[in-house]
Amino acid sequence: MEETFVPFRGIKNDLRGRLMCYKQDWTGGFRAGFRILAPTTYIFFASAIPVISFGEQLERNTEGVLTAVQTLASTALCGILHSIIGGQPLLILGVAEPTVIMYTFLFNFAKERPDLGRNLFLAWTGWICVWTAFLLFLLSILGACSIINRFTRVAGELFGLLIAMLFMQQAVKGLVEEFRIPKRENSNLTEFIPSWRFANGMFALVLSFGLLITALRSRKARSWRYGAGWIRSLIADYGVPLMVLVWTAVSYIPASSVPKGIPRRLFSPNPWSPGAYDNWTVIKDMLNVPVVYIIGAFIPATMIAVLYYFDHSVASQLAQQKEFNLRKPSSYHYDLLLLGFLTLLCGLIGIPPANGVIPQSPMHTKSLATLKHQLLRNRLVATARRSIRRNASLGQLYGHMQETYQQMQTPLIYQEASIRGLKDLKESTIQAATCMGHMDAPVDETVFDIEKEIDDLLPVEVKEQRLSNFLQSIIVGGCVAAMPFLKMIPTSVLWGYFAFMAIESLPGNQFWERILLLFTAPSRRYKVLEEYHATFVETVPFKTIATFTIFQTTYLLICFGLTWIPIAGLMFPLMIMLLVPVRQYFLPKFFKGAHLQDLDAAEYEEAPALSFNLAAEAEIAAGASFTDEGEIFDEVITRSRGEFRHVSSPKITSSTATPANDPKSLQSPRPTYSPRLSELRGELSPRASSRGPQSPRTGEVRLSNLGKSPPETASK
Amino acid sequence: MEETFVPFRGIKNDLRGRLMCYKQDWTGGFRAGFRILAPTTYIFFASAIPVISFGEQLERNTEGVLTAVQTLASTALCGILHSIIGGQPLLILGVAEPTVIMYTFLFNFAKERPDLGRNLFLAWTGWICVWTAFLLFLLSILGACSIINRFTRVAGELFGLLIAMLFMQQAVKGLVEEFRIPKRENSNLTEFIPSWRFANGMFALVLSFGLLITALRSRKARSWRYGAGWIRSLIADYGVPLMVLVWTAVSYIPASSVPKGIPRRLFSPNPWSPGAYDNWTVIKDMLNVPVVYIIGAFIPATMIAVLYYFDHSVASQLAQQKEFNLRKPSSYHYDLLLLGFLTLLCGLIGIPPANGVIPQSPMHTKSLATLKHQLLRNRLVATARRSIRRNASLGQLYGHMQETYQQMQTPLIYQEASIRGLKDLKESTIQAATCMGHMDAPVDETVFDIEKEIDDLLPVEVKEQRLSNFLQSIIVGGCVAAMPFLKMIPTSVLWGYFAFMAIESLPGNQFWERILLLFTAPSRRYKVLEEYHATFVETVPFKTIATFTIFQTTYLLICFGLTWIPIAGLMFPLMIMLLVPVRQYFLPKFFKGAHLQDLDAAEYEEAPALSFNLAAEAEIAAGASFTDEGEIFDEVITRSRGEFRHVSSPKITSSTATPANDPKSLQSPRPTYSPRLSELRGELSPRASSRGPQSPRTGEVRLSNLGKSPPETASK
Repeated sequence: MEETFVPFRGIKNDLRGRLMCYKQDWTGGFRAGFRILAPTTYIFFASAIPVISFGEQLERNTEGVLTAVQTLASTALCGILHSIIGGQPLLILGVAEPTVIMYTFLFNFAKERPDLGRNLFLAWTGWICVWTAFLLFLLSILGACSIINRFTRVAGELFGLLIAMLFMQQAVKGLVEEFRIPKRENSNLTEFIPSWRFANGMFALVLSFGLLITALRSRKARSWRYGAGWIRSLIADYGVPLMVLVWTAVSYIPASSVPKGIPRRLFSPNPWSPGAYDNWTVIKDMLNVPVVYIIGAFIPATMIAVLYYFDHSVASQLAQQKEFNLRKPSSYHYDLLLLGFLTLLCGLIGIPPANGVIPQSPMHTKSLATLKHQLLRNRLVATARRSIRRNASLGQLYGHMQETYQQMQTPLIYQEASIRGLKDLKESTIQAATCMGHMDAPVDETVFDIEKEIDDLLPVEVKEQRLSNFLQSIIVGGCVAAMPFLKMIPTSVLWGYFAFMAIESLPGNQFWERILLLFTAPSRRYKVLEEYHATFVETVPFKTIATFTIFQTTYLLICFGLTWIPIAGLMFPLMIMLLVPVRQYFLPKFFKGAHLQDLDAAEYEEAPALSFNLAAEAEIAAGASFTDEGEIFDEVITRSRGEFRHVSSPKITSSTATPANDPKSLQSPRPTYSPRLSELRGELSPRASSRGPQSPRTGEVRLSNLGKSPPETASK
Repeated sequence: MEETFVPFRGIKNDLRGRLMCYKQDWTGGFRAGFRILAPTTYIFFASAIPVISFGEQLERNTEGVLTAVQTLASTALCGILHSIIGGQPLLILGVAEPTVIMYTFLFNFAKERPDLGRNLFLAWTGWICVWTAFLLFLLSILGACSIINRFTRVAGELFGLLIAMLFMQQAVKGLVEEFRIPKRENSNLTEFIPSWRFANGMFALVLSFGLLITALRSRKARSWRYGAGWIRSLIADYGVPLMVLVWTAVSYIPASSVPKGIPRRLFSPNPWSPGAYDNWTVIKDMLNVPVVYIIGAFIPATMIAVLYYFDHSVASQLAQQKEFNLRKPSSYHYDLLLLGFLTLLCGLIGIPPANGVIPQSPMHTKSLATLKHQLLRNRLVATARRSIRRNASLGQLYGHMQETYQQMQTPLIYQEASIRGLKDLKESTIQAATCMGHMDAPVDETVFDIEKEIDDLLPVEVKEQRLSNFLQSIIVGGCVAAMPFLKMIPTSVLWGYFAFMAIESLPGNQFWERILLLFTAPSRRYKVLEEYHATFVETVPFKTIATFTIFQTTYLLICFGLTWIPIAGLMFPLMIMLLVPVRQYFLPKFFKGAHLQDLDAAEYEEAPALSFNLAAEAEIAAGASFTDEGEIFDEVITRSRGEFRHVSSPKITSSTATPANDPKSLQSPRPTYSPRLSELRGELSPRASSRGPQSPRTGEVRLSNLGKSPPETASK
């Protein structure tokens, strides 16, 4: 993204880009059929459960002025509007923890002032939202989001890990609380005598660990060995919501032998209880707020604006990481503008505003990548089966698959490059096969193991559409009405779910992987290379990796410590924003540029990106030698990561310098090491080892992303 | 084993065989150094914990006449004697569940008779033991163990699975009991009010699942990615005992807030309590038993004798499965004779007799195989490192490793063949390397990944010695004195441990693997082939496998059902012995011979085994073509199973018919499928695919095992 500070230019660009694919955003979603329900329910739970829990927290802190009804309403309202008129539909909106902390602080402030008090609290927050919205408009119009590209991987991942720590902290705190008497409850109730409290705590341990373990397992169901494919698929798609149901059901098993309050369950008023809907008419009180407080509202508003600006943009950025190979453009400026409007709206109807949330947003993208993978896979498997039945040769087989793949591509200008994904593979595979002389013989399923082949052929792609976000927001809205059912969920299941979310957000976070690397036995470090696309393991000395990671971890712990300080804690995003100058001016003094590049590619440090040239690309593709394809092949495979790793098996990436005369792959009987095509071809073409011309695939995808993802290997 | 019914011949053969290696049985154990403590403690826990729990059960059932003190004493005494003068030192002795059931029945019978009663109960069991010993002498002298070879895989594995089910049943029952008031306790105690009972049950769930999950994980520590090698090794070796300690410690965490009885802990009198040692002088009461009961004792004695004959032999057989490649001879006849003496001894001092136990005996062998693997591995890695430092070529490297391997072999006549294990690999690897032209270049660690290479080079071997069995028996004896400490273990940890033992006994049980196969999605069945040496998956139609497995499962469930019938349950071994005629006469009517062979090789059905011919073997080895080695190679790899699977990564076995022109390995970019040497060599020598002359390795090992393991591929 270019750094443009010309007013409105960013918003215009965003709007132009997103309008171009707006229709497809909807048709694409509907065309996915009922399968869209998998990511929808997955994200619905990830979105609703924390919001309900934050609502409960808010209720305690604001003496019941705001409850889960309001947080759910805000999340649903903002979610629906954003999914319809927002820019980036992968972004998930919700009421987040910082908002809760901020509102708690404001409430404590307001109730002490005789001229504000509990009654005018919401009216006053209305004014704060007005100011916040104003500031967000300013930031968005002036192009403040342009500097989002200065938020390198280091900053984004540190923030992601911090959120994971906060979720985990909440889970642990919650579990510990299960052994204690809740503050607002009558401590004389049967369920609070020591024996029942201990029983409740132990039961909570069982329920939350039960949920955590089964939920984590169910996400991996696709790679289970047992059960028919459709069952495994169903479990992988709906396992987490299902487990919430299952463990809620389990919590009722001992119902006859325990007092009613065990295990503890969610607490929230029904939306039709008296007092639960006072907030909606807050606008009529707003003029009753004394002028000094209307003006003073500007101070908390700046803090909230900075927080939202940062949170919203980083959540959006993490949902659009390079690895996902997104094809539709980003929309930071316009989304910030819309967030301003949403904040204003929420303020005027007296509900806490929602903003882009982590880890739900990247979880959403990941689940849509799984969806896309499944859709492509099913079609290609069907095609391959049909070809094999018709006794097609391997060449024809790939031809048919290629056609199908092309048909399934989004009819957008962004599509061009990705078609090549399969094509390259086809060509390289066919050429290899021809050399071995098996090209024209009919293939059968013993030779061509369809399902596995296709899993490996497919690059990571995301089903980018608006439907899943829209539907999940609608269901969140439905939760307000379904409150009596939600109240059946034990709080301990909630804590298990928090831990689950924290753990689910880790894979794919390179910072986390580097922390793990510090604890990895030297002889096993190669495994990291196998499982993640972690080129830095090969190119950066371990000592440098360790120093860098320890620095980052220290920074993380400082940020985490800050959240414990009551009001300073609100400003922890500032600490993370501070990472931008630290990364730009301070780190280069201690680390070599090339190493920093590999650990944390910053666009402003890279060699000028090769301008994307269609003609040149065509030329390279036409004259494709083995060499290029070896490269391409590696690129494609290394792109699949995160969830996909569970689906396919460990691979070793040899993208950096596999010597052509590497005897390892042929000498040794080590079955874990799979000599791949690129290496076998090494026998045929000694050039395979030398880095060929830049792989055209790396620079290809985002024609209109305005330089957001320049060729990643350009400076290597 | 030949079926010889000539009196004493079996015993003489056994004695001759075992005496030949008796000295090495001890020196080998001592030479392993402190590492022998790993299998020792592992088996000690597996041996002591059930014995303590059975002792507790016996105490309840015999009104305190027999307690854990007596079961531990019996286990220790028999174990020590067997490890010193027994035949097969891999066999673990212990007081088993059937003994407990039998003694319970006898006690209930005796206490009703006025002329026996509680006082003469032990004296009467003394007489029963005398008769049992007499019957066991007869059986052993007459060579009844010869028919052990009629107990095919089907029978042994069914029995193994039944025991696993019983252990699991005990674990579940135990956990359910934690929610109830124990029968013998005063139900007015604080810890038995409903709230504390519920709390106790929930705490028990946490402790037992905690133990189960962490123990299972710790067994796989060697393949963890994190932590230094020695830590992982330590955890894998001592993790299970360690976890018992850890979870016992955890059980004390809430000590200040719960009544003393929560969680419930082991109950047993200290051996120095009054009345706990009445039994030792029982011999002086034996003549007080009325004559009619002395004679009548013959009836239960026959039942016990049949039970012991069966249990002892099958436990021994399962500890000596083919896959372990044992090199020292078996000793069924002599061990049964010794069991007679031990039973007599136990009877005369009034303790319940011990016999060979499942799953501890096969667990013992497995842990010794891990030990041997570690020992070989460490030495070979050291050798390889030294060679690489001296800039050796690949040829020299393998030469050095070969020498070291040879030095480490047991200096016994049985050793001859196994030396070839590494040699074959060396030759085939070298020849492959030569073809590629990398033979004489110095190797370095990037080319030759020492630790991984060696893991794959090593065949399964077992550290066969007496020390581990001897030491564990001594420690079991020590438990009698350490009773106050043992009583700190919560019963729930015990239940978790029972479940752990049940699960640990499953891998390697082909019956279990076939049951799983029934639930495996068709497209994933190849994975079974990858992970276990399950040739039958390729050679037997799935429908036949399914029918066979369902038949076997039904049989298993009938046996399991029988154990629920109070006294008929004792006779469930008879049901399993019934499998012998069923297998021999009934099954061949429903299944094809070849399929039965692959599913359950019975020696009496096989083609006459090729007599082992050293000269012929040498010739084959000298003129070794690629073809043979491809075979050998596969054989070696497929031999490693069970625990070893966790160490190395999935391999595909292509031992049955990989077409030489199989294009799969070269065409497809599937990294999970590792084309191995045998296949790569397929490109060089088209003969690789056709089954070459019988692999000399298959018929080689047990020179003196008297046909116990004939060439397994002979009839294929």
